[in-house]
Amino acid sequence: MTEGSGGQLGVGMVGHAFMGAVHSHAWRSAHRFFDLPMVPRLAVLGGRDLVRTKAAAAKYGFASVATDWREVVASDDVALVDICTPGDTHAEIAIAALAAGKHVLCEKPLANSVAEAEEMVAAATEAATRGVRSMVAFNYRRVPAIAYARKLVEEGRIGTVRHVRAVYLQDWLSDEQAPMAWRLRKDKAGSGALGDLGAHIVDATQYLVGDLLTGVAAVTNTFVHKRPTDTGELDDVTVDDAALFLGRFANGAVASFEATRFALGRKNAMRVEVNGSLGSIAFDFESMNELSYYDGSAGPSNGDAAGFRRILVTEPTHPYVGAWWPPGHLLGYEHTFTHEVVDLVRAIADGSDPRPSFADGLRVQRVLEAVERSADRGSAWTAIETGGSA
Amino acid sequence: MTEGSGGQLGVGMVGHAFMGAVHSHAWRSAHRFFDLPMVPRLAVLGGRDLVRTKAAAAKYGFASVATDWREVVASDDVALVDICTPGDTHAEIAIAALAAGKHVLCEKPLANSVAEAEEMVAAATEAATRGVRSMVAFNYRRVPAIAYARKLVEEGRIGTVRHVRAVYLQDWLSDEQAPMAWRLRKDKAGSGALGDLGAHIVDATQYLVGDLLTGVAAVTNTFVHKRPTDTGELDDVTVDDAALFLGRFANGAVASFEATRFALGRKNAMRVEVNGSLGSIAFDFESMNELSYYDGSAGPSNGDAAGFRRILVTEPTHPYVGAWWPPGHLLGYEHTFTHEVVDLVRAIADGSDPRPSFADGLRVQRVLEAVERSADRGSAWTAIETGGSA
Amino acid sequence: MTEGSGGQLGVGMVGHAFMGAVHSHAWRSAHRFFDLPMVPRLAVLGGRDLVRTKAAAAKYGFASVATDWREVVASDDVALVDICTPGDTHAEIAIAALAAGKHVLCEKPLANSVAEAEEMVAAATEAATRGVRSMVAFNYRRVPAIAYARKLVEEGRIGTVRHVRAVYLQDWLSDEQAPMAWRLRKDKAGSGALGDLGAHIVDATQYLVGDLLTGVAAVTNTFVHKRPTDTGELDDVTVDDAALFLGRFANGAVASFEATRFALGRKNAMRVEVNGSLGSIAFDFESMNELSYYDGSAGPSNGDAAGFRRILVTEPTHPYVGAWWPPGHLLGYEHTFTHEVVDLVRAIADGSDPRPSFADGLRVQRVLEAVERSADRGSAWTAIETGGSA
Amino acid sequence: MTEGSGGQLGVGMVGHAFMGAVHSHAWRSAHRFFDLPMVPRLAVLGGRDLVRTKAAAAKYGFASVATDWREVVASDDVALVDICTPGDTHAEIAIAALAAGKHVLCEKPLANSVAEAEEMVAAATEAATRGVRSMVAFNYRRVPAIAYARKLVEEGRIGTVRHVRAVYLQDWLSDEQAPMAWRLRKDKAGSGALGDLGAHIVDATQYLVGDLLTGVAAVTNTFVHKRPTDTGELDDVTVDDAALFLGRFANGAVASFEATRFALGRKNAMRVEVNGSLGSIAFDFESMNELSYYDGSAGPSNGDAAGFRRILVTEPTHPYVGAWWPPGHLLGYEHTFTHEVVDLVRAIADGSDPRPSFADGLRVQRVLEAVERSADRGSAWTAIETGGSA
Repeated sequence: MTEGSGGQLGVGMVGHAFMGAVHSHAWRSAHRFFDLPMVPRLAVLGGRDLVRTKAAAAKYGFASVATDWREVVASDDVALVDICTPGDTHAEIAIAALAAGKHVLCEKPLANSVAEAEEMVAAATEAATRGVRSMVAFNYRRVPAIAYARKLVEEGRIGTVRHVRAVYLQDWLSDEQAPMAWRLRKDKAGSGALGDLGAHIVDATQYLVGDLLTGVAAVTNTFVHKRPTDTGELDDVTVDDAALFLGRFANGAVASFEATRFALGRKNAMRVEVNGSLGSIAFDFESMNELSYYDGSAGPSNGDAAGFRRILVTEPTHPYVGAWWPPGHLLGYEHTFTHEVVDLVRAIADGSDPRPSFADGLRVQRVLEAVERSADRGSAWTAIETGGSA
Repeated sequence: MTEGSGGQLGVGMVGHAFMGAVHSHAWRSAHRFFDLPMVPRLAVLGGRDLVRTKAAAAKYGFASVATDWREVVASDDVALVDICTPGDTHAEIAIAALAAGKHVLCEKPLANSVAEAEEMVAAATEAATRGVRSMVAFNYRRVPAIAYARKLVEEGRIGTVRHVRAVYLQDWLSDEQAPMAWRLRKDKAGSGALGDLGAHIVDATQYLVGDLLTGVAAVTNTFVHKRPTDTGELDDVTVDDAALFLGRFANGAVASFEATRFALGRKNAMRVEVNGSLGSIAFDFESMNELSYYDGSAGPSNGDAAGFRRILVTEPTHPYVGAWWPPGHLLGYEHTFTHEVVDLVRAIADGSDPRPSFADGLRVQRVLEAVERSADRGSAWTAIETGGSA
Repeated sequence: MTEGSGGQLGVGMVGHAFMGAVHSHAWRSAHRFFDLPMVPRLAVLGGRDLVRTKAAAAKYGFASVATDWREVVASDDVALVDICTPGDTHAEIAIAALAAGKHVLCEKPLANSVAEAEEMVAAATEAATRGVRSMVAFNYRRVPAIAYARKLVEEGRIGTVRHVRAVYLQDWLSDEQAPMAWRLRKDKAGSGALGDLGAHIVDATQYLVGDLLTGVAAVTNTFVHKRPTDTGELDDVTVDDAALFLGRFANGAVASFEATRFALGRKNAMRVEVNGSLGSIAFDFESMNELSYYDGSAGPSNGDAAGFRRILVTEPTHPYVGAWWPPGHLLGYEHTFTHEVVDLVRAIADGSDPRPSFADGLRVQRVLEAVERSADRGSAWTAIETGGSA
Repeated sequence: MTEGSGGQLGVGMVGHAFMGAVHSHAWRSAHRFFDLPMVPRLAVLGGRDLVRTKAAAAKYGFASVATDWREVVASDDVALVDICTPGDTHAEIAIAALAAGKHVLCEKPLANSVAEAEEMVAAATEAATRGVRSMVAFNYRRVPAIAYARKLVEEGRIGTVRHVRAVYLQDWLSDEQAPMAWRLRKDKAGSGALGDLGAHIVDATQYLVGDLLTGVAAVTNTFVHKRPTDTGELDDVTVDDAALFLGRFANGAVASFEATRFALGRKNAMRVEVNGSLGSIAFDFESMNELSYYDGSAGPSNGDAAGFRRILVTEPTHPYVGAWWPPGHLLGYEHTFTHEVVDLVRAIADGSDPRPSFADGLRVQRVLEAVERSADRGSAWTAIETGGSA
């Protein structure tokens, strides 16, 4: 591991599309705003096409390139492997990297199946005994508003949780002529809206509530079964376009979830609402710097001034915010990745296990699998193995 | 029937609590703002307690009182019976009234069971052959914003419907010490949040979409099982506190529903969103004078100016609004009942069958029953007999 | 006065257009929801055109009509004269009515000039010594959210007021072809947006703050100078289309006001924001059931949960609301008039002077006149005689 | 100039506080997301305190430091001087840099007086003849929503502009115990809220409307006259805490402005609304990824679907956005500076004059001065020399 040498942390990244762009920005920026024990250094970028990978490396600031992910994992310059590829490759790369003693940051969903995810957890658990760390990139935990909401829940500000409702609505497939893509193939993506969007709201709500889903009843749907490829031919969509499910948390709360890419007009509406016995919180990623909070603890006596308050989560006392700008000067999507990197680097340096762990990723995977099984069995209630707390 | 004599329509009302107050206001006000073929006259108010019924009659403006609903039905002054009692009495009163040749306006849900609702539909169908009309009081169809949304859907402005999501959130039971009430007893209310709130969103979405639900998968929950009565003793809550269900419409749209009285901070959040292939609409009763509408029909070419627009549904061209105030001068909850009465009186006068009909009420009842059955059977998918279009 | 006989209050109304419709609804409805010491009775409706006045009387429920306002004032059936005519007639009718011992409710603005308003105040002051009451119809004081905001200010919840900003935005003149109307003639209306809309926000802010404006600097503008009449000819617009002014309150707060009918898309956006040393409040009539309130009293220590809260002013503990519906069931524009009538009838019965008084109306008139003088003198600061507290 | 050598642009920055942090992030990031003709290189950071400047240089990524701004200007490594100091030093540094053939990016307001600004414009004009470019950092022009709003106005989508209303509300001085700072000293900052916040809304509205203010009437106020310094002693606040002014644009539009740091609860509410004859736009920086747009061009015929639409300005077709993330993935405050740098670098490379120019900065300065003169003269209307179009 190179993190010891010169206080730098050599980063090898596999994949350089959307996630590669945002992850590399995070690696470049984290130490500019936060005090980090090690300075990330963009060492090697891995991609299959040499020309495009070189272009991306120049753009993102990587020192070198590789056309095989194994080179990235093997490189002496690399202390951490950042996996930004489609889900079908996560397990193989992550397990190899951990075996090679490299810390791993892995994009979500953790894997395309529970079996793969379990292998990854086993590898991560073993690696941790050697001081090798791993994290799954559920970046929404690092939205300041969500991290702050978690703090409110943890402090008991909303009391016992009774209701969770979460949706993740996009609309980029709403047009029936939108082209075929790897995200629409089950063999690459594992599932459709469920794994892409549903995974985020499952992780975010389990994190927020501090509890795990114990069962679900689900409906999935594919609205458009064939889409044009680059060549103009039609290809089969083999994943869900939308997934809806009801659930129960271990503590007794009831929950409702929906993930879709067909909600015309909703661009990135990742919304969560939690109602407790003393208060409620609500969040919408399309207004990601805000948290709605209803303080119902005062009861009827002074309830006449109660109302959902719009908290601009931009105060220096809010999670992560102190490193940035004055109140009311908004943060954006990419900051969530910067925060993720900050926490990961700090965990590596102080020898602690960062969250969300691969085990957290497995917990999400189990929910996704239960959703698919329930949908296949006429929405029948499907229990989820939790095996521990959130 | 007295509607012929002097152009008046004698109204007999049974029940004088919350619904009695708002219905009588509607009967008093309708002809002050709308041109009606007959002027409603508040003839007889029925209630079991003479003193309280007399007080209510004075307050509401009824000419006389009765302590047995049979007197109301039998009165020569009564051409229409308005049923504002708990659900367990609807069938008996409505069927008797229709048999007596009295038009009927019946509060929702239509009945406490599908069997009762079917009997009511049979009675209504037979009565219609005699020119006797019946209507179930799903007043939310008469919110101008919802009526206008229906118009947009009907005109094809949002294309093929793909997603329906509806919640009805209140919080008046959130406090565990809130007292016992008839709405919490299965024998009186039939069900809890399901029949009280869920019925509204089932009817509203079936109306909006112009289609019927063909099946559901459901979860229900009771958070607080015992509540204090007037005497301080604890009594059993025998209904659901919350009902969540997924569904499919006949045309293929997927849907999600939730009704609860435990969503702390939400006072009357009856919310509906519909996503179609060309546009979307969204509504929240807490902002009942507004409709959100996304016009996605222009496609990517001029999509850069697309966005959910907040339509203030207060223009004279909007449904019902021309009878009231200038643009931006809001209407309230009670107006929906006035509009209901206007449409009912006009239907009676011109010999047409008003909507929502008892058959519409039965369609809702079948959904509610399917929800309960699904919840009892581990959320298993439960088909709904539709037997005709919406 | 007839209020003594049989507990009724005979109402004579002059004018039957928009204001006549909403006032008569208030008179009809007040005792149906509130306990009143006297029941209003719609006795005589005055209007110049017999046919149209008879039609209006039938619609509104008046017992008789008159084609001269003097008949209304003189009628033995009339204990209270409700003046719903354009501003140029207010002084004459009100003074005559008060002289005749009739209580007066007068639409706003109180008059078309300070001189007239002063005469009216003198008449009202003298009449009060005889037990004859008068009120000017600034109905926005009776919006529950504004009445509640006043309560918060009065209780010191926002501390010392530093900033007041108020706009009243409409758009019905935005179209250059919109027809000529009496509201566009200085001789009838006194002024344009200033008297029609500006008067409301001057009264509402003086009421809310509990303080008076001591000076203003103003700009007025007429965007469209000629408009078509019924005959198609062009006629001169002789009033302002928009009035903007800055001001200072006696306590030192600075203020900004704008009234216009050219704010395209704004239908009835009467908006007020007040920032104090401990909190802030904000209101928009287009969401009239809501109040925004920022509680800044906790200071930095727990400021991380601070935010403008959206209070749904629909709780039974909120002003006027207990008489109506459950929480979250909205009220509309017309309710403000019902509340006005309730307070007026109660004041008459218990022998107190209702507010806003004619003196309050004069205070507004003085501000309006100062605005016009400042605009005429190059926006020069123009002091306002206050002569007493709000 | 070093921009020729190796395609790099050596940046020398003077000042390293808030503005230094955000500018250096922009210089580091611009070429990572945009195709730039030259790659910015952080060459020299100037600051008076060596230790603190070294620390800042390490944090921000500067290659070297200087304790005298003259060294920055003189450095051969520096092709562009970025001025991030208080306003009293802008003129001297900028004029020296331009004389030395260095491009200049200067923070706003351009200067502390019109006289200084005029000298700067003269220097910039002369420098431009030598290919040396200058820009004033009104970054809000590069908020995608504002740039897009400008496009709508330019395309005639809102027709003739009639109303402009702009506020810039913060609350960080609301606490009377908030400490003394350089921004509260007239000799350093020139003015208070006026120059700090008012400058932004003057520039933004002149840019949006494409027109210049021709006169103003103003009120300024200082709420708290003494504040504690580091030593605990009280020092005099010599600037305005709030500035309010009315104005007229050359085309006849009327306008209202307010800048304050005492609007408790408003953190960075830079709000602009423009009403035209065909449409309206509204913006609030606290929701900086959104633009409200009302399309009134369809007229009454299909006006029933009109409403302010909330455009999420996150589509690839929106200004600057294509370089970043997918729709609905928000941008933040700092992006506006990155966009500024992108446009500046491109202008330097292609030999065009970037906007906002020093002349634009002077135009703002003239408005600020007129505001102060009007406030000093009892709000008297004060004409503004425009000398050309926006």
